[in-house]
Amino acid sequence: MPIRAGELAQWLGAELTGDPQVLIERASRIEEAESGSISFVANPKYRSFARGTRASALVIGLDLDSTDLDCPALIRVADPYASFARVLERLSEDDRKPRRGLAPQAWVHPDAQIGENVWVGPFSSIDSGSVLGEGVQVHPAVCIGRNVRIGARSILHPGVVVYDDCEIGTDCVLHAGAVIGSDGFGFAPQPDGSFRKIPQLGNVRLEAHVEIGANTTIDRATMGSTLVKSGAKIDNLVQLAHNVEVGEYSVLAAQSGVSGSTKIGRGVQVGGQAGLVGHIHIADGTRINAQSGVNRGVQEPGTALTGSPAGPYRSELKAQVVYRTLPEMEARLRALEVQVLRMTRDQQPTQQEP
Amino acid sequence: MPIRAGELAQWLGAELTGDPQVLIERASRIEEAESGSISFVANPKYRSFARGTRASALVIGLDLDSTDLDCPALIRVADPYASFARVLERLSEDDRKPRRGLAPQAWVHPDAQIGENVWVGPFSSIDSGSVLGEGVQVHPAVCIGRNVRIGARSILHPGVVVYDDCEIGTDCVLHAGAVIGSDGFGFAPQPDGSFRKIPQLGNVRLEAHVEIGANTTIDRATMGSTLVKSGAKIDNLVQLAHNVEVGEYSVLAAQSGVSGSTKIGRGVQVGGQAGLVGHIHIADGTRINAQSGVNRGVQEPGTALTGSPAGPYRSELKAQVVYRTLPEMEARLRALEVQVLRMTRDQQPTQQEP
Amino acid sequence: MPIRAGELAQWLGAELTGDPQVLIERASRIEEAESGSISFVANPKYRSFARGTRASALVIGLDLDSTDLDCPALIRVADPYASFARVLERLSEDDRKPRRGLAPQAWVHPDAQIGENVWVGPFSSIDSGSVLGEGVQVHPAVCIGRNVRIGARSILHPGVVVYDDCEIGTDCVLHAGAVIGSDGFGFAPQPDGSFRKIPQLGNVRLEAHVEIGANTTIDRATMGSTLVKSGAKIDNLVQLAHNVEVGEYSVLAAQSGVSGSTKIGRGVQVGGQAGLVGHIHIADGTRINAQSGVNRGVQEPGTALTGSPAGPYRSELKAQVVYRTLPEMEARLRALEVQVLRMTRDQQPTQQEP
Repeated sequence: MPIRAGELAQWLGAELTGDPQVLIERASRIEEAESGSISFVANPKYRSFARGTRASALVIGLDLDSTDLDCPALIRVADPYASFARVLERLSEDDRKPRRGLAPQAWVHPDAQIGENVWVGPFSSIDSGSVLGEGVQVHPAVCIGRNVRIGARSILHPGVVVYDDCEIGTDCVLHAGAVIGSDGFGFAPQPDGSFRKIPQLGNVRLEAHVEIGANTTIDRATMGSTLVKSGAKIDNLVQLAHNVEVGEYSVLAAQSGVSGSTKIGRGVQVGGQAGLVGHIHIADGTRINAQSGVNRGVQEPGTALTGSPAGPYRSELKAQVVYRTLPEMEARLRALEVQVLRMTRDQQPTQQEP
Repeated sequence: MPIRAGELAQWLGAELTGDPQVLIERASRIEEAESGSISFVANPKYRSFARGTRASALVIGLDLDSTDLDCPALIRVADPYASFARVLERLSEDDRKPRRGLAPQAWVHPDAQIGENVWVGPFSSIDSGSVLGEGVQVHPAVCIGRNVRIGARSILHPGVVVYDDCEIGTDCVLHAGAVIGSDGFGFAPQPDGSFRKIPQLGNVRLEAHVEIGANTTIDRATMGSTLVKSGAKIDNLVQLAHNVEVGEYSVLAAQSGVSGSTKIGRGVQVGGQAGLVGHIHIADGTRINAQSGVNRGVQEPGTALTGSPAGPYRSELKAQVVYRTLPEMEARLRALEVQVLRMTRDQQPTQQEP
Repeated sequence: MPIRAGELAQWLGAELTGDPQVLIERASRIEEAESGSISFVANPKYRSFARGTRASALVIGLDLDSTDLDCPALIRVADPYASFARVLERLSEDDRKPRRGLAPQAWVHPDAQIGENVWVGPFSSIDSGSVLGEGVQVHPAVCIGRNVRIGARSILHPGVVVYDDCEIGTDCVLHAGAVIGSDGFGFAPQPDGSFRKIPQLGNVRLEAHVEIGANTTIDRATMGSTLVKSGAKIDNLVQLAHNVEVGEYSVLAAQSGVSGSTKIGRGVQVGGQAGLVGHIHIADGTRINAQSGVNRGVQEPGTALTGSPAGPYRSELKAQVVYRTLPEMEARLRALEVQVLRMTRDQQPTQQEP
């Protein structure tokens, strides 16, 4: 929804230099901006792009030198990045009103309870006993099992699957293809080498404001709940095994994986493709680098880890630097061995030959 | 389905101490148990939880000291873990009767053959020539292509896709979003740098009692079959490329990947996020640690591997330990060099300056 | 569709020895071939299989010794592998005619524009403003959002999801469960530790002849486009984050992942499970080994990388070799230390004890 630069500045509580009537239709990266675009300069490195920009408006810092900028409208703020994020919110607002009602092509069990202003798209199914809170948005081809609870305003994108008995909090977003509540990987080995499936009787519980990425999988607990706490953000293609817990405001990047019963504290950051073994506890604020393999618990809050197996960030980095020089180190070692051997011979000219 | 403690003990062939009339409604982890829960103590480490438990019944070992336990019903067995797994089975039994019939919202091609007691949920499609055995459960939004064969009692969870011509054995479980039979990644490079797709004319064949995790992908063979043998268990988000074979009772943990034409023997264990290159053979009983990168075949049955590139478990572990000390090793090497240089000078006081 | 050996040889422009009337019904690997099969020998290593083969026809090199082969029809070509790929194409041709029309169980918004000869399978939904070019094949249970553009002849396999505003070029193939246009992982940290979602207003754009693997996820750009250029091939379970670019004819193997805003050049090869950090540029023709972790840009075209963190292929391989010997190196270092200490004592017999 287009907006005037002046109105936007006012909404941001910001100072405007230039023409308040300039119409803003979209947000663009500064190097791609055109007439009708708003962009921003947060990092001085991008200052050079600002000079030739074709953007109609720029969000810039309070102290940015603007003498050579001929952009029609400059909006000055204390934190350009944060303010621009708000601009994005404003531009996406009202853009597409939330839908309402049950598509005639949806299937909703008569025992399901559907709140006010819920949308259920075509080819989605909601089974018996499930409860959808006010304003829930169910996109097409979503499958919701039995006795599922979904909190108000949560959004389930196309193809999401929620197994029986799982609970989704309020204001959650589940991206396309996410699977919530599949059976944990539990098999008891039998004497003949085969496996007997251990029934997985627990569920998955997502608290409020959780976001789950596309095609991510979260297994139900064997007993009790696999739990993702409020405000945690899980990226695409992540695996959370049975009985895992993820603390509040923790962030797991794409393709990371957490093995069974591991508990991740609050404010933890897990990098892409990192893996955690099962049955460990990760302290609050731990930062785990991409591709790390964490094979033991972390007691100290705020620890930074890298490597596979993972160790403390700084010492691992030092080891990595030396690792690169291993062939030279080996050559130096060999040279020393030769030298010492010679010296030994020089010292003991009468020694016996071996 | 609730059950009396006495009845459960009898069914397990176990001895009961306490009140056989206690009603058991659910299984719980011992630290979360409440009235109506049954729990267990397999590991003496959890003995301490048993004292204060609120569980109505406990499954414990024959020799566990129970003097200070005031739990209403104690069930004594030789192997508490295995017996408790059976309790889980019993509690999940009959809980939800299998469904039957074709949902009016399903689409089944007139040429498909549907066995007795099959359930096909809403928005699932079954194309021409496909054959579903007795008791197959097809959850909502499943897509079954042409000439697919699905053995008796297999369960396809929501959103599963089975491409044309693939074969699923009896008693298999495919979790939500699993894709069976997508095209293998085969492209012939052309002189101009582009690629020409190599048609993938084979299929995927799963034998009996195979379990496939959520959002796992198994590519069809270029020719012949990509094959998963009886009793193999594949976790979530695993990738099996074209013409891979997985042996009986082998287990692949989440996010592991196997490249084209690699053959995995019987009883092999592959850890999470491990990767195997193509065209190799992995001997029976090989154990591959999480995040390993296996770039050559394994001849010796029962080999344990770790690292990337992977090597024998024990020697890799030794190398990992020394790796951590690399900065100190380098310092020790430097100190030696200085010392030897000094000694050389002392020995040859008349040497020329370089 | 079966074909006579003579007709096939003619179509390949190849010489035939033997019976041109032999009927070929399928392609097989040489060790699995039966009557009615055609197979090939490209690698002399497989020559031994050719002798006993039951194949009805073989594609072989111009100079392969065929004296002891009793196969009914031999087709001689300069490049057996390339010619056999063409045979596969021929055998798959017309095999199953493309479908046409909208299934009665599909849902197509009245504002969507559907080209000639399009097929839309059951339970697929196409929302308002979307445009499907001539001959597009939409398999069952596909979800196409609003204002999506799909170029002529592209194929969307079951369960594919394309979010609003994304663009798919001509002749693309999207395998089952692929997700195009999910929100990028963008969250602005707030002072209280929570995160505020940064709206993702851009889209995903796939150019022509792009193939996307099963359950792969490609996030929409924050602003602008996440871009996959012509002829690029992306395998299964790959993650492309917001604002990533993949160059023409680049190939990404299964389970690899690319972080936000990274630009991959033309003809780049990324191995399975490799990961790239965000905001870097990868030069044309770079080859990245499986499981590598690329944490800095690559300037030099044609560079080969391996390791995590990744370094130049040859030097990393040398370091890996020495890594394996670390325990022995440490022992050698310790032995030297002892020896030098002794020599020091021998040289200075009168030194004070420490």
